[in-house]
Amino acid sequence: MSILVVGSIALDSVETQQGKVTDSPGGSALFFSASASFFAPVNMVGVVGEDFDFNHIDFLKNKNVDFMGLKVEKGETFRWGGRYHSNMNQRDTLYTYLNVFETFKPSIPDKYRNSEYVFLANIDPELQLQVLASIPSPILTVLDTMNFWIGGKRQELQEVISQVDVMILNDEEIRELTGIHNIHLAGKQLLQEGPKVLVIKKGEHGAVMMTTDDYFSAPAFPVENVVDPTGAGDCFAGGFLGYLATCSTLSNENYRKAVAYGTVIASFNVESFSFNKLKEISRQDIESRMETFRNLTRF
Amino acid sequence: MSILVVGSIALDSVETQQGKVTDSPGGSALFFSASASFFAPVNMVGVVGEDFDFNHIDFLKNKNVDFMGLKVEKGETFRWGGRYHSNMNQRDTLYTYLNVFETFKPSIPDKYRNSEYVFLANIDPELQLQVLASIPSPILTVLDTMNFWIGGKRQELQEVISQVDVMILNDEEIRELTGIHNIHLAGKQLLQEGPKVLVIKKGEHGAVMMTTDDYFSAPAFPVENVVDPTGAGDCFAGGFLGYLATCSTLSNENYRKAVAYGTVIASFNVESFSFNKLKEISRQDIESRMETFRNLTRF
Repeated sequence: MSILVVGSIALDSVETQQGKVTDSPGGSALFFSASASFFAPVNMVGVVGEDFDFNHIDFLKNKNVDFMGLKVEKGETFRWGGRYHSNMNQRDTLYTYLNVFETFKPSIPDKYRNSEYVFLANIDPELQLQVLASIPSPILTVLDTMNFWIGGKRQELQEVISQVDVMILNDEEIRELTGIHNIHLAGKQLLQEGPKVLVIKKGEHGAVMMTTDDYFSAPAFPVENVVDPTGAGDCFAGGFLGYLATCSTLSNENYRKAVAYGTVIASFNVESFSFNKLKEISRQDIESRMETFRNLTRF
Repeated sequence: MSILVVGSIALDSVETQQGKVTDSPGGSALFFSASASFFAPVNMVGVVGEDFDFNHIDFLKNKNVDFMGLKVEKGETFRWGGRYHSNMNQRDTLYTYLNVFETFKPSIPDKYRNSEYVFLANIDPELQLQVLASIPSPILTVLDTMNFWIGGKRQELQEVISQVDVMILNDEEIRELTGIHNIHLAGKQLLQEGPKVLVIKKGEHGAVMMTTDDYFSAPAFPVENVVDPTGAGDCFAGGFLGYLATCSTLSNENYRKAVAYGTVIASFNVESFSFNKLKEISRQDIESRMETFRNLTRF
């Protein structure tokens, strides 16, 4: 039940009302792995520069994250700098230095080719297609993307969409992708373009999951002290796919629980910078918050 | 188990992507009554002008809404005109003619003084205080307000807040009222200022209910064809208080269900202009959608 993730590894400099960090580990592949590895072994494919300090991610080894697919290239690691507004919903990007990530060509180690679960984090859709082609018989493929690709590589993205089982995107992205404002109608259309399952993230307002025969709506878990929202979406995906990797069937019921696990793990992650909080917590903490989450939605 | 509502009665001219209506019945007291009367008898206090056509609201009589408190004054009825943006979340007010509502002084008929449930719709807090003073022993009092009073009559509003059991407001209002952005923290503070129960409405993102010992989060009911959002908040309040009026105890569990009923009735109301949809549906339709709503939040 191993999970393959292909995505970015970054050094983030983030400033929020709660403080700031400089060059702290981040990127979609790391946030995803830190979350999914609570549930199942993770195979990570990505690239860093020679400046990357592996001590940063040493704890992931103890959590069954395999780094054989992590290349070290000559040059510097992808860097992103951002500042959040006081409402934590908006942020300004201060800089984006792609560095070694600019020429990233995911190379899937042979021993990863039997990965059963695949998460295509937000990278160029052309690369996502290559990754899909290299995994012969996945049980479940999950796609993330962003506005940049919706605008810039629409045709390639549409091809990826037609090939995956699950697509996770946020409310703005599905509106841009479909041209439909009402997310329920937008979701119905997108479900005809390939994915069997859609998860529409609404940030502090929770998430909606749609399949051809199910509709599930989950609020966000209430967090009083949001320290840094960076990576919340990838942590959500990690909890979501991580939980599904433990399930013997991909039923609507399990998809619903997967959304709840994603929500809960994301709620932990925003309580600290980088993935510091995920380092501290245990699977038992996750189960405990799941129970709290279930209680606060029951009527 | 009768409910008293004191609020506005208006003739609304509304334009949305789905069409337009001119001088159609609206206002907080009418929307509330049309909703709450699915559950319990409603005593309405308000004012209209001589131009008001009572045929508009004849159906409410058959639903146990008592109009003895509805005064007809010389002049014209309160009129509001608005146009919704295509996203249905924003609207421009085209005009507000207070007319007879400008000098509204709620006069509570003697036979209303034993009302057990009181809804103070959005009117001047000074008037809300007078209404409270005239009901000697209510079981439950519920307050609505708006930014206008938060800014303009803060002290009087704070006095009303200190006297009511439940306050219903939206996310922007609680932020303005408390000066705290995080609604969970804002809610905690507001709970110390009087109300035992807070309901924070988030429009298309659902609602949160907080008490001193409970926290409940409900998504919105997904509506694919939103025709007119006008009155949704008052319909929510009507479903909420209407349901509570049928309960023998005011338990957290019943408050949660009340939020769900409010959500469901509001979801019906936005499917048509004015309260046309509420005229068509039965209590059974409400129960049926409640069941759908419960199913789509369960995990």
